[in-house]
Amino acid sequence: MRALVLEKKLQYQANHPDPKPGEGECLVRVLMAGICSTDLQLVQGYMQFRGVLGHEFVGVVESGSAAWLGKRVVCEINCVCRGCDMCLSGLANHCRKRTVVGIDGRDGGFADLVSVPEANLHEVPDTLSDEQAVFVEPVAAAYQTLSQYPFVAKTKATVVGSGRLGLLVAQVLAETGCQLTVVGRNEAKLLLAEKRGVQAVHVDELICRADHDVVVDCSGSPEGFELAMRLVRPRGSIVLKSTFAGEQGVNLAAVVVNEITVVGSRCGSFTEAINALVREAVEVRPMITQTFPFDRAVEAMAVAGRRESLKILLDMRR
Amino acid sequence: MRALVLEKKLQYQANHPDPKPGEGECLVRVLMAGICSTDLQLVQGYMQFRGVLGHEFVGVVESGSAAWLGKRVVCEINCVCRGCDMCLSGLANHCRKRTVVGIDGRDGGFADLVSVPEANLHEVPDTLSDEQAVFVEPVAAAYQTLSQYPFVAKTKATVVGSGRLGLLVAQVLAETGCQLTVVGRNEAKLLLAEKRGVQAVHVDELICRADHDVVVDCSGSPEGFELAMRLVRPRGSIVLKSTFAGEQGVNLAAVVVNEITVVGSRCGSFTEAINALVREAVEVRPMITQTFPFDRAVEAMAVAGRRESLKILLDMRR
Repeated sequence: MRALVLEKKLQYQANHPDPKPGEGECLVRVLMAGICSTDLQLVQGYMQFRGVLGHEFVGVVESGSAAWLGKRVVCEINCVCRGCDMCLSGLANHCRKRTVVGIDGRDGGFADLVSVPEANLHEVPDTLSDEQAVFVEPVAAAYQTLSQYPFVAKTKATVVGSGRLGLLVAQVLAETGCQLTVVGRNEAKLLLAEKRGVQAVHVDELICRADHDVVVDCSGSPEGFELAMRLVRPRGSIVLKSTFAGEQGVNLAAVVVNEITVVGSRCGSFTEAINALVREAVEVRPMITQTFPFDRAVEAMAVAGRRESLKILLDMRR
Repeated sequence: MRALVLEKKLQYQANHPDPKPGEGECLVRVLMAGICSTDLQLVQGYMQFRGVLGHEFVGVVESGSAAWLGKRVVCEINCVCRGCDMCLSGLANHCRKRTVVGIDGRDGGFADLVSVPEANLHEVPDTLSDEQAVFVEPVAAAYQTLSQYPFVAKTKATVVGSGRLGLLVAQVLAETGCQLTVVGRNEAKLLLAEKRGVQAVHVDELICRADHDVVVDCSGSPEGFELAMRLVRPRGSIVLKSTFAGEQGVNLAAVVVNEITVVGSRCGSFTEAINALVREAVEVRPMITQTFPFDRAVEAMAVAGRRESLKILLDMRR
């Protein structure tokens, strides 16, 4: 099969071996996939990942149990043991023995075929296009923010970063009716937020008064975290959505002095994400910068890394 | 008056000008004071503080309103405006215009006399000695931990750091009946924790299984924070008690991946602290390494900076 593989460097391979499904797993023929900032970080060395990249994809079940055969699906990325303390305490996404599709110890979906646990599958409603379905995983991650801070109408909230994740988080937060601002550097991306009714401010025009109840850092940079620290009020919260690949650290003295709560946030509910896409609470189509045929995947990754890019899709049928 | 003053360097001054109380303030004649790690950090440049050091002290009100005259008192350190958004929202300790006694914009209590707002005073019960009363401020800071995590009997908790603050936090947490461990490097200090019924482990003998519900970092170092990150379970909490003077940063990627909550914690309730000392829930006397006459304050600061030291007191009457 064809696959985008990270070995010592990133390689498009036309004849990669097909995956062999394990116990409880099925084969999914990938239709379309999305490139995430995490993919770009993995290429930079994050997680020391080696294998087939890709954790945002939609496909059709090609082999597996009868109940799933032929169904169009998206796939949760944490593959868990169901036996460790985390799994048994209801925190399976933090399974001690987990592999993570295309991120940690398991091949991903930038390929014609991917093997995944059937337990991780969610059927995609007919009303969602393949392009929309690719966004289920990052929209789920955006929804996780809501479980980590009690957003209400009077909440003064800011999303730092108007990139792929920031624009999704902004749309999810907008539904809560909170007093929301998105901060970014790219006018075109900020305009997308404004079109969804979210106030958008260029970082150069931002005045930091340390008066926001909560700041969601989707910047993917230590500078973004420092900006969040200047925006948040004493006793406020910073929800940290993005990892930084580098070792560059942040100074936490102000966290203590101002008694800030910093909470990390990762994967979220696919069910909530699918529902949100169906009812168009989150509109993802304007975020698609370009769709590449799969044999140009290496080029697509390079384009995804450009400042002006939002979501880059890979189309396995082209 | 005599005072320990931080100018370009630390100086003992025998003829420092007496403080002049402002509106609502009174003069306190200091009886005894304690040296805190924050004092040592201030000398290293933290907060760019200039003036009389000292924020842990007990004294007698020498001038002020009749209600307070002659009373033995301790003093809350945040001097607040009562008019800003923080004060009006019940977060006066985070007042936008605050000064902090001996830490930020206001002279402290390493002196014969200190001027403080009467609103900040708490009378010391007769059953507490001066030595115990000096600990009210740090014990209050230790109590603040309880308001930032819901410790219960099944909570698996660790205090990182067996220094001045760590041993106070450990005693406060022990009262909740949680499953408590203190981690440190100094055998004598760990023994003090054990004498209070708290399990103590040397850092070299510690096995990190990422299975603690909450870790309170009292280490005062980025290394302590990194140890806390290895101890805490996914979705667990780190309560950060100590600032580090240096610019050395910490890597927050694992906070995101493991969805850790990091919450900064600073000053706490003097009333709770006084009550705890009265009922001997917190025993501070074994933590006193040495008491210096005040004219040897510079030497006392040097001794406080030694690894083996716990609390160093300054006695203004000697």
